[in-house]
Amino acid sequence: MPVAPKRIIKEIRSLRHKKFRQEEQAYFAEGIAIVLSALENQAPVQYVIYSPELLRSETAYEAISEARARIPCYETSAQAFMSISGRDNPVGIGAVVGYHDISPDSPSLLAYSRFVALDNVKNPGNLGTVIRTADCFGFGVLICGESTDQYHPECIRACMGALYTVPVARFDTAGNLRQWCHKHGVSIVTTSSKARDDITQISGYPRPLAVLLGSEATGLSHDVLQLGELQVRIPIYGASTSLNLAVAAGIIMYDVVSKPEFKS
Amino acid sequence: MPVAPKRIIKEIRSLRHKKFRQEEQAYFAEGIAIVLSALENQAPVQYVIYSPELLRSETAYEAISEARARIPCYETSAQAFMSISGRDNPVGIGAVVGYHDISPDSPSLLAYSRFVALDNVKNPGNLGTVIRTADCFGFGVLICGESTDQYHPECIRACMGALYTVPVARFDTAGNLRQWCHKHGVSIVTTSSKARDDITQISGYPRPLAVLLGSEATGLSHDVLQLGELQVRIPIYGASTSLNLAVAAGIIMYDVVSKPEFKS
Repeated sequence: MPVAPKRIIKEIRSLRHKKFRQEEQAYFAEGIAIVLSALENQAPVQYVIYSPELLRSETAYEAISEARARIPCYETSAQAFMSISGRDNPVGIGAVVGYHDISPDSPSLLAYSRFVALDNVKNPGNLGTVIRTADCFGFGVLICGESTDQYHPECIRACMGALYTVPVARFDTAGNLRQWCHKHGVSIVTTSSKARDDITQISGYPRPLAVLLGSEATGLSHDVLQLGELQVRIPIYGASTSLNLAVAAGIIMYDVVSKPEFKS
Repeated sequence: MPVAPKRIIKEIRSLRHKKFRQEEQAYFAEGIAIVLSALENQAPVQYVIYSPELLRSETAYEAISEARARIPCYETSAQAFMSISGRDNPVGIGAVVGYHDISPDSPSLLAYSRFVALDNVKNPGNLGTVIRTADCFGFGVLICGESTDQYHPECIRACMGALYTVPVARFDTAGNLRQWCHKHGVSIVTTSSKARDDITQISGYPRPLAVLLGSEATGLSHDVLQLGELQVRIPIYGASTSLNLAVAAGIIMYDVVSKPEFKS
């Protein structure tokens, strides 16, 4: 197995920075489950890098030996791997993967009939957790506005491989998202702690639907809240005024899948 | 207002380390909402520290001016505050707070009739998010086994002030938790992806109840799962095999508050 040249180690280190990721249109995905998911789901993996001193997973070695016929797989020392890893205890495998943005009109997205949409989400860990939950409940993911980058290392990590199984599409503004929903007959459900309807009182949801949540700090703006044909809130009984964004998204996706649907 | 002496800056820096927190039985809580919640809810605040160059909140200045009659409040430079802060963009206020562990038999805990219990939770961000959600839905928090420290900076941050409004009690083992539940007539509901009952099929929950969730990596052990008079799973429809722990806890707490209860 070829040893990773120095330029590869240097390249991976630079991919921590968004500017460099955007120039290269690529990112570093680290961890066994994540690399296996990327390989299995035909993500555009440019190369795999691993450290035999650190990596202790037979499944991972099997995947590497299958992958190496079509993708460069580099070995490296434990020390060099630690220098590229973003983790305290690296497991010793990662991959550089090309961006895989999908168009809002791609068939893989339009095959879904439920979507979770985030407007101005700032925290990459929250975005990753929402993508993981969307995978569990069978939702596609739509991002709009000034949102964080789904290729941020914290997002990749929180996704746990779901980035390769869930379609994630991006819109410049909530207005563009609204047009897309209108074009494809998707009902919009907006969420806010100030919204009209308590979700515990709702008997069912339209389908197809997109549930839209706002930023961690300020939620949805008044205008965007009005885009919802249903405008819902999760009831809060305690001193805290709001739920974490990823928890709120999880509760709403759960509520949608556990209640009856009606054709919108 | 007195200027923070160097030993204060040094002490706060050391409180990043669990060993030093345990020796001092104190931790550093940073951020406006968190410090205000600590002051309002009579947490054992030892002193407040803030940087007039950074702090831009009238509410925070009002709270400082009320607090200073009973608690030392130190000013410091922006540079010194940056050196103690764990954030990229510090808002310029923090407090050193003494540990406030409560006994499982304390009346403030026993006033609750719903609890969320975590066995071997490892990630302090997850613990903090669960405490925040528990506040929103009116649950007390029980921690058992080899769990992370609720005074870890990432937990404090994810709590958003709920650490001062929600009682958090600790048990050495899940067995001790079971005894406590038995003594106080609290039904146990355990959760696992391998459990018998799908929560979407459950028509109601006992009350008082404690919902018990396991660690991020392995969930509840087989033996602990058996402690539940109800053993429930959240249905998963996608390629991911599990939800994030804090999301799973949020969905179950929501399910409990939104369905009918029966006396256990």
